[in-house]
Amino acid sequence: MFDPMEERMRGIVVRNIPRSPKSMTDELRILGVATIHEAMDRQGLADPVLRPVYQGASIAGNAVTVLLPPGDNWMIHVAIEQCCEGDVLVVACESRCTDGALGELLATSLRAAGVVGAVLDVGCRDVRALQEMQFPVWCRAISARGTVKASLGSVNVPIVCAGMAVHPGDIVVADDDGVACIPYAVADQTRITAAKRQSKESESRQQLAAGRLGLDRLNMRPKLVAAGLRYVDNLSEVTGPRSRQ
Amino acid sequence: MFDPMEERMRGIVVRNIPRSPKSMTDELRILGVATIHEAMDRQGLADPVLRPVYQGASIAGNAVTVLLPPGDNWMIHVAIEQCCEGDVLVVACESRCTDGALGELLATSLRAAGVVGAVLDVGCRDVRALQEMQFPVWCRAISARGTVKASLGSVNVPIVCAGMAVHPGDIVVADDDGVACIPYAVADQTRITAAKRQSKESESRQQLAAGRLGLDRLNMRPKLVAAGLRYVDNLSEVTGPRSRQ
Amino acid sequence: MFDPMEERMRGIVVRNIPRSPKSMTDELRILGVATIHEAMDRQGLADPVLRPVYQGASIAGNAVTVLLPPGDNWMIHVAIEQCCEGDVLVVACESRCTDGALGELLATSLRAAGVVGAVLDVGCRDVRALQEMQFPVWCRAISARGTVKASLGSVNVPIVCAGMAVHPGDIVVADDDGVACIPYAVADQTRITAAKRQSKESESRQQLAAGRLGLDRLNMRPKLVAAGLRYVDNLSEVTGPRSRQ
Amino acid sequence: MFDPMEERMRGIVVRNIPRSPKSMTDELRILGVATIHEAMDRQGLADPVLRPVYQGASIAGNAVTVLLPPGDNWMIHVAIEQCCEGDVLVVACESRCTDGALGELLATSLRAAGVVGAVLDVGCRDVRALQEMQFPVWCRAISARGTVKASLGSVNVPIVCAGMAVHPGDIVVADDDGVACIPYAVADQTRITAAKRQSKESESRQQLAAGRLGLDRLNMRPKLVAAGLRYVDNLSEVTGPRSRQ
Amino acid sequence: MFDPMEERMRGIVVRNIPRSPKSMTDELRILGVATIHEAMDRQGLADPVLRPVYQGASIAGNAVTVLLPPGDNWMIHVAIEQCCEGDVLVVACESRCTDGALGELLATSLRAAGVVGAVLDVGCRDVRALQEMQFPVWCRAISARGTVKASLGSVNVPIVCAGMAVHPGDIVVADDDGVACIPYAVADQTRITAAKRQSKESESRQQLAAGRLGLDRLNMRPKLVAAGLRYVDNLSEVTGPRSRQ
Amino acid sequence: MFDPMEERMRGIVVRNIPRSPKSMTDELRILGVATIHEAMDRQGLADPVLRPVYQGASIAGNAVTVLLPPGDNWMIHVAIEQCCEGDVLVVACESRCTDGALGELLATSLRAAGVVGAVLDVGCRDVRALQEMQFPVWCRAISARGTVKASLGSVNVPIVCAGMAVHPGDIVVADDDGVACIPYAVADQTRITAAKRQSKESESRQQLAAGRLGLDRLNMRPKLVAAGLRYVDNLSEVTGPRSRQ
Repeated sequence: MFDPMEERMRGIVVRNIPRSPKSMTDELRILGVATIHEAMDRQGLADPVLRPVYQGASIAGNAVTVLLPPGDNWMIHVAIEQCCEGDVLVVACESRCTDGALGELLATSLRAAGVVGAVLDVGCRDVRALQEMQFPVWCRAISARGTVKASLGSVNVPIVCAGMAVHPGDIVVADDDGVACIPYAVADQTRITAAKRQSKESESRQQLAAGRLGLDRLNMRPKLVAAGLRYVDNLSEVTGPRSRQ
Repeated sequence: MFDPMEERMRGIVVRNIPRSPKSMTDELRILGVATIHEAMDRQGLADPVLRPVYQGASIAGNAVTVLLPPGDNWMIHVAIEQCCEGDVLVVACESRCTDGALGELLATSLRAAGVVGAVLDVGCRDVRALQEMQFPVWCRAISARGTVKASLGSVNVPIVCAGMAVHPGDIVVADDDGVACIPYAVADQTRITAAKRQSKESESRQQLAAGRLGLDRLNMRPKLVAAGLRYVDNLSEVTGPRSRQ
Repeated sequence: MFDPMEERMRGIVVRNIPRSPKSMTDELRILGVATIHEAMDRQGLADPVLRPVYQGASIAGNAVTVLLPPGDNWMIHVAIEQCCEGDVLVVACESRCTDGALGELLATSLRAAGVVGAVLDVGCRDVRALQEMQFPVWCRAISARGTVKASLGSVNVPIVCAGMAVHPGDIVVADDDGVACIPYAVADQTRITAAKRQSKESESRQQLAAGRLGLDRLNMRPKLVAAGLRYVDNLSEVTGPRSRQ
Repeated sequence: MFDPMEERMRGIVVRNIPRSPKSMTDELRILGVATIHEAMDRQGLADPVLRPVYQGASIAGNAVTVLLPPGDNWMIHVAIEQCCEGDVLVVACESRCTDGALGELLATSLRAAGVVGAVLDVGCRDVRALQEMQFPVWCRAISARGTVKASLGSVNVPIVCAGMAVHPGDIVVADDDGVACIPYAVADQTRITAAKRQSKESESRQQLAAGRLGLDRLNMRPKLVAAGLRYVDNLSEVTGPRSRQ
Repeated sequence: MFDPMEERMRGIVVRNIPRSPKSMTDELRILGVATIHEAMDRQGLADPVLRPVYQGASIAGNAVTVLLPPGDNWMIHVAIEQCCEGDVLVVACESRCTDGALGELLATSLRAAGVVGAVLDVGCRDVRALQEMQFPVWCRAISARGTVKASLGSVNVPIVCAGMAVHPGDIVVADDDGVACIPYAVADQTRITAAKRQSKESESRQQLAAGRLGLDRLNMRPKLVAAGLRYVDNLSEVTGPRSRQ
Repeated sequence: MFDPMEERMRGIVVRNIPRSPKSMTDELRILGVATIHEAMDRQGLADPVLRPVYQGASIAGNAVTVLLPPGDNWMIHVAIEQCCEGDVLVVACESRCTDGALGELLATSLRAAGVVGAVLDVGCRDVRALQEMQFPVWCRAISARGTVKASLGSVNVPIVCAGMAVHPGDIVVADDDGVACIPYAVADQTRITAAKRQSKESESRQQLAAGRLGLDRLNMRPKLVAAGLRYVDNLSEVTGPRSRQ
């Protein structure tokens, strides 16, 4: 059934991917998805349809990527052998699917391989067990529906997971705000920018808590005037379409 | 760039909105969204797509309304200056958007202004921090995606938030069941109707817990007969399309 | 208004449905939805859009089925009279609807009748009260929106609930992974198959936790080779469309 | 790989299904989905997500049913052998999937077998070719994405297609308004009721076109008064929550 | 069953609404939804989920508004009596519903009353007949599913239709691009602004067709430079996260 | 406002992208999306949510890519200057958005530049005009909602458009079945594989039209037996969960 000429674009497992030092992924995990995403010019985020199966977890690690056909999780078994301590499993599917491609057994195996969590553009199951064993998963759906092991996909090829482009070895960060992907080559620069951003935010937080307005702190008033903002005491002062209301 | 003739329908901030006594909003908060909504003839509810970022919170307050362009939260900064103790920030967007227009920093600033919570027909981020600081938010999505501060919207104009019409000063109530809006003019009447309804419900609850059926309590049996309800011992008695099953 | 010739397909209440011994439903509840669904060849599952209103509950019981018109919960009142200790209320709707057809009062009445939980292909409300009284509900949406009591549906007829076919008396199992339906006639056989599967899983879990790969345990390697799987050290070795990346 | 004890619920092909005379299906096709659905008390309709790939077609025929795993169309090949002149192919999927399980080639084969059209709770492709050959298909999505032939499903077992329960041999009717299923046992009765309804509608149409109101024709006015309908000249007459607007 | 104190917020029919001269609505219809929407500062648009049941129609007229309970079209019958030559029927629903609340018979009656088309935040049926009689409808779904006539709503009260606020008498414009609502008070001003905009567009079209770039026509280049736009010959020149690709 | 250190990841325009000979894109256009997608091992397809604004068009050309912020189409103006005869404009958005980022004016300008059509992971407007001028567009939504020109994105960087990874210069093919992307480096090989596939399909079509079954042509019967397929005369022969139905 296998014709090497026809099957050229699937069934590939890449063994070598870049990895980052633990100090790097630890720092990125603590910075968090929202700050990192801002540090990357509001790019590199997965669609918010991906949600954690339980609240409060946060992870960061190099991506071992998996591309699955719909309804089939064979390649996850193949991928585990390619995983190292600290990795994040990132799973894309060739078409939209919510089947539960990962459950307690695969999570047990992933943990044994040192994987810190998984991001799935498909479904997940055994969610109570996952919470009990504290193996965090971000996914498109929670579904008891199982999958077959019949068709090849690929491991460690570039994928698109929930609209987010991921190359093997990219650093994937996930927490209660969602999932972001930092290209491997810019991880350090992103870390620096994000850390700077975070210290600025601490200062902002104090001022805002003390009642100072963003309008004043960020000197927005002249720009608002220039853009045409008008203050009125009552809507009826404005001659306009909604004035009657 | 600003042409007053062309930009007439945006860029308006209304300074004065009506406010209710705290006793009123407190009572409405305790009555809860489901009871209030019934007291309003099942009207005034936001689409159930709006969900709280954490469970167990409930708020009620006068609405400071914000209309945003998609992907832009500049007007929230403008709105904070218009907020008073006990207000609820209610945000609509000119088109469907899930970007995280509100996070920890804006929540800090809103709390400093006395705002008790926010209802967003867009996304929200920093949800763990929001839960830690117990600033409740109801929103369309959780998304780390940030926004720009480039285009005007309006503050304290009538808006449509998740299908719910809100005028500035209306009382917005939100809890685990969703979000409702009570027009300012009928707040007191709604409060009275809802309170009556609630006391009736307490009595119903006791009877139902004791095993008395709604069929008997509400005297439904004659109406069901009149509507044609038939009791059979087995489906095969009914000559009908599903009888074969 | 009621014409017996015209209304033949609605307004039917069937009094007798099969019930299972408590030992059976208890065992199925503990086996859980994911294991049962596998034991049924990955069939009989509700669409994953049905979610529990609070985490951690699990139920199993014979289905008392209800078919509602949209926006109307009259038939739930009728159904309660047909419920016995240990039953599960399963509600379908004639068209897509998210209105809150069940809340605290109906839950109180269902509990008085011995019902262990409810599965609704519509909305649910009073979710905080439901959690406090520990009456678990799986539903399509949480919505404070109430319903009328104006039009007939049916009780204990075959229904389709979130894509899952349910006959009265079938055993419905629900937990954090979703909702499954076991046809009454095969409950015992499903129980046996699922229990076997579960013991195998315990063994698998131990081996996987110890680091043994599924690839080896399930002897997948020769099948993967036969299917054409190729291992490469770098993607650039593969002459293919994505090699440039 | 095949264990007869484990695979009992899939891989079944039923050879004999009931069929109706062509005069019956012809008449039902002409009556159309909306009229038939009313004649069945507003039951038996597929979810409106199923849409025709081109406008203007209408079909009716006995259902040859197919249950597919996601991403796999092997069973459609098996089903074609079971099809007779005048049948409708009705395809369900074990989980939500939009892959294009049917295209020009399968349509050519179905046509050769006498099948008049197909209803798919999955995707369809080659839609321009289908329109050119005038083979009508109702489906969940149009998707060029192809499927594998790796896993068994079943043919001519009861299925749920887009929320609609279909037994093999039921009469499926489809047109621009959607898709309905008439249980085989009640086809004749449904035909009679629908035909009666249609003649009444012709009369109604004439009266309505002449300007006679439904309010008067159906004598609704006293019922509206009894229900509490109030006519006012301006909204300001009503003391109520929206009167301010 | 009707308690006037309890039912105060529904069951209202307002007889008098403002109407516009035919010349006004004709001109707005020809200007079209996209131009009008721009002239209103990109506000007043219905959610794009509302689509025409057939292509190529365009209408404009004063809104007769209807608020329906889900699954019930009784109030449309009441509304027809309030319609005049040139009106547009605009239907909202108290909760999300796709049932076919309007079909050929109601369209016949609406046409007899002079109504030019309908906008429904629910479903529509008999779509082939509607196209044949050229009665255009914009709706959320096409569904053969019929509705009951059991519960009151209201006629000519302010509504929210697919996220668009509509007051009775507002001018609703609909074409292949969607549906917009112009508040009655600003119709003339909107007409003037839109017409100006349209003539500018004609000029733009000629220049653009001749190959002149918007960059030059609108003098965007200095603003782009100020915003930081950089031109490079190859992506590899940019030291950045995606440069490796 | 522009800080070159902070804005590094946006605001990039790449001038040089690879282009293919017209003979190549012509042939790929004629082969069509479904055949090409199969030739690429069922990869490289956009999510089926992208639909053409009118039926019957088909295009193929090298991709000029655009990345937009939500609600902003400034970069499309920038992109037009980078377009050549035969190109396809492919637009992604940093977050989910349905605003009408492209209408008649931009289409006029794109046509003047030689662009053959556009693929938008956002909305489109002026669809009647686009059909009249026969400028085909595939998009996520039809929406009259316009956009601003306030924030930078990028041109000719790698993007993800509706889940499909696109590099500048890749060949994008679109027709009634959807949209596919062929990486530039494998265009020729894909063309050859697809053409082979197409000739095989012609032969298959003839055999299938003559009534020969796929079961026999593709020698599926032994594989089906091996997988456990059972033929029965009636469902009641199968001892199984659904036998009762």
